[in-house]
Amino acid sequence: MKNVPFVICLVLSIQVAAAEGPPTLNLMPVPAQLELGDASIKIGPEFSVTIEGEGGTPRLHGGVGRMLRRLSDRSALFFDNSTFLQLKGRSMAAMVVTAGRAGELALGEDESYRLTITSDGIALQAATDIGALRGLETFLQLLTLDENGVTVPEIAIFDQPRFPWRGLMIDSSRHFMPVEMVKRNLDGMAAVKLNVLHWHLVDDQGFRVETLAWPKLHELASDGNYYTRAQIRDIIDYAAERGIRVVPEFDLPGHGSAWLTAYPELASAPGPYEIERSWGIFDPTINPTIEKTYEFLDALMAEMAELFDDEFIHIGGDENNGKHWLANPEIVAFMDEKGYEGPLTLQRYFNERVLAILTKYGKRMIGWDEIFEEGLPKNVVIQSWRGRESLFESARLGYSGILSNGYYIDLIHPTDDHYLNDPLPADSPLTPEEAARILGGEATMWAEYVSPETVDSRIWPRTAAIAERFWSPSRVRDLEDMYRRMDRISLMLEELGLQHERNRPMMLRRLCQCRDVAALEVLLGAIEPVKVYNRGRLRKHTQFSPLTRMADAAWPDAGPARDFRWAVERLIESDFMDEEDLGAVESTLIAWRDNRGALEETLRTSPALADIEPMSSALAEASAIGLEALVLATTDSSANKDWLDLRLERLNAARKSHGQVELVMIDPVVDLVCAVTLPVSMTAEGCREQETPVVEHH
Amino acid sequence: MKNVPFVICLVLSIQVAAAEGPPTLNLMPVPAQLELGDASIKIGPEFSVTIEGEGGTPRLHGGVGRMLRRLSDRSALFFDNSTFLQLKGRSMAAMVVTAGRAGELALGEDESYRLTITSDGIALQAATDIGALRGLETFLQLLTLDENGVTVPEIAIFDQPRFPWRGLMIDSSRHFMPVEMVKRNLDGMAAVKLNVLHWHLVDDQGFRVETLAWPKLHELASDGNYYTRAQIRDIIDYAAERGIRVVPEFDLPGHGSAWLTAYPELASAPGPYEIERSWGIFDPTINPTIEKTYEFLDALMAEMAELFDDEFIHIGGDENNGKHWLANPEIVAFMDEKGYEGPLTLQRYFNERVLAILTKYGKRMIGWDEIFEEGLPKNVVIQSWRGRESLFESARLGYSGILSNGYYIDLIHPTDDHYLNDPLPADSPLTPEEAARILGGEATMWAEYVSPETVDSRIWPRTAAIAERFWSPSRVRDLEDMYRRMDRISLMLEELGLQHERNRPMMLRRLCQCRDVAALEVLLGAIEPVKVYNRGRLRKHTQFSPLTRMADAAWPDAGPARDFRWAVERLIESDFMDEEDLGAVESTLIAWRDNRGALEETLRTSPALADIEPMSSALAEASAIGLEALVLATTDSSANKDWLDLRLERLNAARKSHGQVELVMIDPVVDLVCAVTLPVSMTAEGCREQETPVVEHH
Repeated sequence: MKNVPFVICLVLSIQVAAAEGPPTLNLMPVPAQLELGDASIKIGPEFSVTIEGEGGTPRLHGGVGRMLRRLSDRSALFFDNSTFLQLKGRSMAAMVVTAGRAGELALGEDESYRLTITSDGIALQAATDIGALRGLETFLQLLTLDENGVTVPEIAIFDQPRFPWRGLMIDSSRHFMPVEMVKRNLDGMAAVKLNVLHWHLVDDQGFRVETLAWPKLHELASDGNYYTRAQIRDIIDYAAERGIRVVPEFDLPGHGSAWLTAYPELASAPGPYEIERSWGIFDPTINPTIEKTYEFLDALMAEMAELFDDEFIHIGGDENNGKHWLANPEIVAFMDEKGYEGPLTLQRYFNERVLAILTKYGKRMIGWDEIFEEGLPKNVVIQSWRGRESLFESARLGYSGILSNGYYIDLIHPTDDHYLNDPLPADSPLTPEEAARILGGEATMWAEYVSPETVDSRIWPRTAAIAERFWSPSRVRDLEDMYRRMDRISLMLEELGLQHERNRPMMLRRLCQCRDVAALEVLLGAIEPVKVYNRGRLRKHTQFSPLTRMADAAWPDAGPARDFRWAVERLIESDFMDEEDLGAVESTLIAWRDNRGALEETLRTSPALADIEPMSSALAEASAIGLEALVLATTDSSANKDWLDLRLERLNAARKSHGQVELVMIDPVVDLVCAVTLPVSMTAEGCREQETPVVEHH
Repeated sequence: MKNVPFVICLVLSIQVAAAEGPPTLNLMPVPAQLELGDASIKIGPEFSVTIEGEGGTPRLHGGVGRMLRRLSDRSALFFDNSTFLQLKGRSMAAMVVTAGRAGELALGEDESYRLTITSDGIALQAATDIGALRGLETFLQLLTLDENGVTVPEIAIFDQPRFPWRGLMIDSSRHFMPVEMVKRNLDGMAAVKLNVLHWHLVDDQGFRVETLAWPKLHELASDGNYYTRAQIRDIIDYAAERGIRVVPEFDLPGHGSAWLTAYPELASAPGPYEIERSWGIFDPTINPTIEKTYEFLDALMAEMAELFDDEFIHIGGDENNGKHWLANPEIVAFMDEKGYEGPLTLQRYFNERVLAILTKYGKRMIGWDEIFEEGLPKNVVIQSWRGRESLFESARLGYSGILSNGYYIDLIHPTDDHYLNDPLPADSPLTPEEAARILGGEATMWAEYVSPETVDSRIWPRTAAIAERFWSPSRVRDLEDMYRRMDRISLMLEELGLQHERNRPMMLRRLCQCRDVAALEVLLGAIEPVKVYNRGRLRKHTQFSPLTRMADAAWPDAGPARDFRWAVERLIESDFMDEEDLGAVESTLIAWRDNRGALEETLRTSPALADIEPMSSALAEASAIGLEALVLATTDSSANKDWLDLRLERLNAARKSHGQVELVMIDPVVDLVCAVTLPVSMTAEGCREQETPVVEHH
């Protein structure tokens, strides 16, 4: 970076602002440091950009072109300059992008940038073109459209990521995801500064890569749904243009159904094998005791190492149950001969053989927790699905790792759960040297319960908040502010073609075979899909099951229910005196209570909504109870224990899930009825504890 | 077809029904013949399909698989049989698909089918697998979800197309359309039984095909936005799986900017050339007098003839203004030497040379009107953009042709204009032999004013009505029934991934940078984009201009305005006595009048909506006048000529377009004010004529 004295000066002034808590605007992730001025800088049709420095690569030119397209689309400005690089003098709104060098798409590359917007112009400076791309996204998030027109604020930002590995895992095996799904999600990733696409290409349910070395893999184990080599290259190039690495995963030696459907001669058990259509952990496992396995993998990895540019190849390694190994006398004999204690030791042997192959082809290995063992070379990276503790353990032993536990977005947890989950909390027991081995994390979009139509709504906008956790300083943790910004960013993400907002009304139209879906949207505000792995427990799903029901249209994190919960919390805190919260809580409860009637005709005539009817009735019931509590609270009446017990019983019954969705407005209503009967129950906590938690419902 | 006696019997019984006007259900296109029974047949989880006959091709298997996916997605049914072909006995809801042979993807192939649904089972029989695919689409349109569950009606359908060439032209040159846009539109085409994708791949604004023979075409003349050969093949295969031919167009010798940007040595004028960024007719033209041109085209067509399977290659041939030819002394000398009268004759020479090349590579030629000349071989096909008369003229001379005039969906005409435009009206002067040369027609999606985000909304649902014109008997012309069915089909088209409905609210959210777009949607109900070529006249657009404004979000054919117009017509006919229509007209006018206030804040704070403010004010003004008229009508008052003149003047002022949209509710309001002042004006017609028509507004 040039102009070092200026940088230092700027950093000093910013640190003062940071101590006061700098404003977050609509930025997500929040930059490392920023200082906001008072002025607004107008963007007009004369806006233009010039690119300077050795980092003025095709990648950066492409990024500036896309930025201008989005700027024009969002503002509806007709730029004078279609060829944006012919800077017509440096007009007030001109932007100068300076990149020091072409960045490398490698772990730890410099992604920092400095964005300075003043009435004298807009300067984006970065050590690499990749850093400049990150800054362009920040610039677009700063764009404001309001009564003052199209503006950006006067601002000085210095920004850099907290962690170097910030990933999203896309599972293309369980449900195949078409090329355009991957591309639009790469655009979404770039918009929130994620830099690794971890591509889960193989699992029991399908092998998704064309392979010249072993063509039966894609021919027999994909139902014809695989990426051609040209498509893979296209996607890698697309990602590279956005400064995103692509790490392919070939899950071995468990999750073997697809592998062995194509090449049963590599199996640990006789077979026959076929593509798995259900979800779970299955027995098919590659045989690690025969040389044919390693010849096979050598040829495959030779091809894949050439096809995929990235330094890393992910070998999976998870959830091998060892059953087929222990059932095979030859494998048992092999273990005995080698003196192995059991399958774990045999898998270690397998991993070492695979590692040797990867090393031969110039690749580093990454795998899930299970691959970890002390003897491994220190350049192997561990991805932890088990938890922070196992990550810390390997960091202590000198291994780098990334965290995925807590970022399983397929489990339909609310955003704040993920957001507050820090790969390296302030109170971590690690030494600075050990802490430096925590490389970051990855959100994981496992694809059992998503289709190309619904998957964006499971990734976005929640992954924007996870991206902030990986990029922004750890102090940025305000939930209300996060939700406010995420709601804005969600709209901005739409311009990239992401379907997370726009497919929902379409899905509702299909469910009711009608156009007016307003009442269904009200219901959606109060329900969420069942969490964790309950969906599959409640109803058997296969790869062919429809993912077009309310459970699929529902938000993972229903905004209206969240607003309701917060308003109830504040209302109780104010002792029911806050008029605004009272009004909000009351009108929400009325809308929910009356929704059953509004949906009457729709539910009666829509077979695809039949299983939702009890949810609608339960919502009306629970809302009516909430309204009763409000009446008590606002008329200075109070309830007795019998009243309370009956209400709690009915609320508890309303928790029962139907159609794989659950009501998520019960807890605040419980709080309401408890609050109005505090005279008869000991404490609010004691009141809540009266409920019997209902874990599972069939 | 087997079972001929049964077919005859069925046809007889159906003709009786046809004379009575068979019901159209939600079918679009309406089948040639159908007979509806009384029963409903339930579709349950045990539903399964078996495929029989020599036409049980991979294409048909794929089609059945997609049908089952859509059936499951729409009904939310979990089928017992994921592997649908293992027919578990012939249960009540089992479907047997019988196809006689593999169809050929060629002009005139048999696409007929017979679909019989009774309580004994569902039989789909077709001569070819392509015909069976058409029948599967009909089956999906028959699916009913209501209080009786998931059913199809008892029915007997015999269906076949009226015309063998039923096309949609997609212009990928002016705005590049990504692969997924083409694919989802192929699905839409298949759903309404269109069978030709005419792919406009070259124009002044870009050359969109990778070419090995002349790589500078895609390298220098596409901005990097072109289809690779693999992508072209992928799309051709995708189309073929749906029984759709792909006819590529290489527009020659005019529209030459892209060609000559890459290979200026083929130009008629010195150049330099660059990719054209604006819209219109431009001068760059290929030089037809040099042999290099034909060597170039020979190599190109050799490659393209191999890449594209279809029998036809489209050579464009339109809108060559001849300027560069007449300005080039060598070309003029060539014409003199050959004794040519002018550019038209020279283009004829060029066409004949190109025809020889196409013939050499086994292809038939198709081109726009301008290529027509009497000496041409009779196997050349003419596509008429000029009109039915020129099509009939060539038919009389023995040439086959298709009609596109009247199907220019880019001109934003309402659906009924296209729908009532018949390639071969009942009163056509052609002999049966000549009439047989009218092969069909094509809707043309020229891409000056569409982006990948908006293009679906310009194609759909209007093209479904055009498809009906090409497929269904000419007697099917009821507009109200057409609009009713089109509205249903539009929702079904959504399940194919088409964006025509779902992108609109997204575009409104972007315009207001807000979530509540209800008031903007009300405004959208009263406006449409300006028609014909006025958009470009009103504001200069280039390839880089944003297509994200209200003019782009607006329906080409605003349903609420149409409903309003019809209600006003009926209301006046009833002498203001029909209470239902009166209520509808009044409530619509009130909503429109009050919309200005509802939009106040949004318009004030949204710079991208600034140019729409006058439209909102004009809507309020015109609606208030309509309400005045209603008061007069319903209070048995009457107005005088001064009142009328002032109202007509104000309504006329409200016609002024802003932001490239226009109010489409003025005419009915004029009718209202005229109707209530009939005592003072001679006739309703005379009243309307008082207006000065306003043709253009800047």
